[in-house]
Amino acid sequence: MTEFDLIARFFDRPIPAGSAVAQGIGDDCALLDFGAASQLAVTTDMLVAGRHFFPDAAADAIGHKALAVNLSDLAAAGAQPRCYFLALGLPAADEKWLAAFSSGLSALENEFGCVLAGGDTNRMPRIAGADAPLVICIAAVGEVARGQALTRAGAHVGDDLWVSGSLGDAALALEALTGRTTVGEADASSIRLRLERPAPRVALGVALGGLATSCIDISDGLIGDLRHVLTRSKVGAELRWAAIPRSAAMLRHSDDTQLRCVLAGGDDYELLFTASSAHRAAVEAAAERTRTPVTRVGVITEDRDLAVLDENGNPMDTPFKAYDHFGTYDSTP
Amino acid sequence: MTEFDLIARFFDRPIPAGSAVAQGIGDDCALLDFGAASQLAVTTDMLVAGRHFFPDAAADAIGHKALAVNLSDLAAAGAQPRCYFLALGLPAADEKWLAAFSSGLSALENEFGCVLAGGDTNRMPRIAGADAPLVICIAAVGEVARGQALTRAGAHVGDDLWVSGSLGDAALALEALTGRTTVGEADASSIRLRLERPAPRVALGVALGGLATSCIDISDGLIGDLRHVLTRSKVGAELRWAAIPRSAAMLRHSDDTQLRCVLAGGDDYELLFTASSAHRAAVEAAAERTRTPVTRVGVITEDRDLAVLDENGNPMDTPFKAYDHFGTYDSTP
Repeated sequence: MTEFDLIARFFDRPIPAGSAVAQGIGDDCALLDFGAASQLAVTTDMLVAGRHFFPDAAADAIGHKALAVNLSDLAAAGAQPRCYFLALGLPAADEKWLAAFSSGLSALENEFGCVLAGGDTNRMPRIAGADAPLVICIAAVGEVARGQALTRAGAHVGDDLWVSGSLGDAALALEALTGRTTVGEADASSIRLRLERPAPRVALGVALGGLATSCIDISDGLIGDLRHVLTRSKVGAELRWAAIPRSAAMLRHSDDTQLRCVLAGGDDYELLFTASSAHRAAVEAAAERTRTPVTRVGVITEDRDLAVLDENGNPMDTPFKAYDHFGTYDSTP
Repeated sequence: MTEFDLIARFFDRPIPAGSAVAQGIGDDCALLDFGAASQLAVTTDMLVAGRHFFPDAAADAIGHKALAVNLSDLAAAGAQPRCYFLALGLPAADEKWLAAFSSGLSALENEFGCVLAGGDTNRMPRIAGADAPLVICIAAVGEVARGQALTRAGAHVGDDLWVSGSLGDAALALEALTGRTTVGEADASSIRLRLERPAPRVALGVALGGLATSCIDISDGLIGDLRHVLTRSKVGAELRWAAIPRSAAMLRHSDDTQLRCVLAGGDDYELLFTASSAHRAAVEAAAERTRTPVTRVGVITEDRDLAVLDENGNPMDTPFKAYDHFGTYDSTP
């Protein structure tokens, strides 16, 4: 049972008529409508030490990442961050750690005008003589003009497929840190920043409101996250491998490593979005205005399939799946 | 360093002017204002197996309690529950467990019209060959007419002090289950319901809007939670021990046990609130309308102290503190 099966089976219930919930489970954010001019976009992400970050990562980087991944979901909905709620399950931790963790959060709060509005702190129990892992759970609230929220559901046949920034560096950094791939020293420190301090594409997401037809943030790998858009939009896509933006550090690696990291690596926190080809200039203007690089990487097709094409336009063999936070889950008791 | 010290020191930052956050850290809920006729009350609570519930408790009871404690915070703000977000950190768990957990949540969703609007699921890592504990983090959103939210800050000198329901049964149940206190079989099962399936006092909380001058839910023990109200309202209180409502099961125990469970036990999820003595009849009418028993247990005083009085009006010796979720935390590295 994957994470997505589990949610569909046990938690995705029909929303009753008259509810304030305009959009529920199944997108980057839920959308709430309380009769104001704007709707609220709300997302929640739990990060667990040893699963989403190295337990010995710098405390301020952990704080940064915990908030950044939630802001990235708001960006994918085109919502302006307003506030967030922080629940902590702390193993033994010292004041120095807490001060650094808090400063990592507070730098992002200031950058994005996102206020820490409430929370809950708990001490994790000890398990088998060892500390249970640090757990950080954030719920973030953003604001978006009514009807302007970006979702995964609006991609049309013929739309351009775009991504922001470059892809795969965070996955490459993880491979370097775990010894799977050897990376030069200079590259190692630049890509490690991509893994530990992702920059949520909030300004771009907000600028794409009314312009993009669909949007998602790439957190579980390009292929897997693109599949979410295709499923919800009931379309297919052709992705041009050669067009996908990669850093100089990435381009120094073998095709195999590049394909693996770029198509299936997680933790990019770039935006993947679609827009009418008639709006190419407008998309480029939005990107320039928000100082965010964007690249056209493919097109939405009627054929409900996902094809990755090589430079000659021939389909490549890409067996990669999305990173599944529940991939190791065994449903048989 | 207590939980409250930790929050004050590392996380309670000033709210910038112009923020949508009308009330931040320090009350049962934050209040958000997005220009609608109503404000939003938002709360988050994390529950960890082995700390907030027995790991082998019935799965539907765990689901019930995880949502109920958040709804209780909304009740304390006088807010009508609208929706919630569920983040899970799951150790190995089978489908039967998930189905029962989900049904425990869904029964409360239906009872209170609170829609599951989004979430996040993660697999907890294994620690030292053992499963890391189950972690459940809920953020709940309620709606309250602008300016009508109940807070901890409005108690006035001379106000009556009220509590809903009866106190101490959940703490007594915990003592029975851990062998500290012996409880008869019939009582054991009735008080265990109080521990495992608290009934959030939502209808009463909403009915107290514009009537109560302050409100808090009793989750960490009467004395400790009352102290929060006194501190924020800058007042004191006299509590009449004989007036505090106790169940028949509780009254069968020694004075020592009663004092400990009623004054300092946690997990009551009753409302503690203040109201002008001129509004006694209105409070009683609200209680009757919402079919919630309420009892006057004391009075707010100018003297900034908390006194528990015996039946002769003499101060009793009550050394009890609030339950501190971080009490075992050691701040020295």
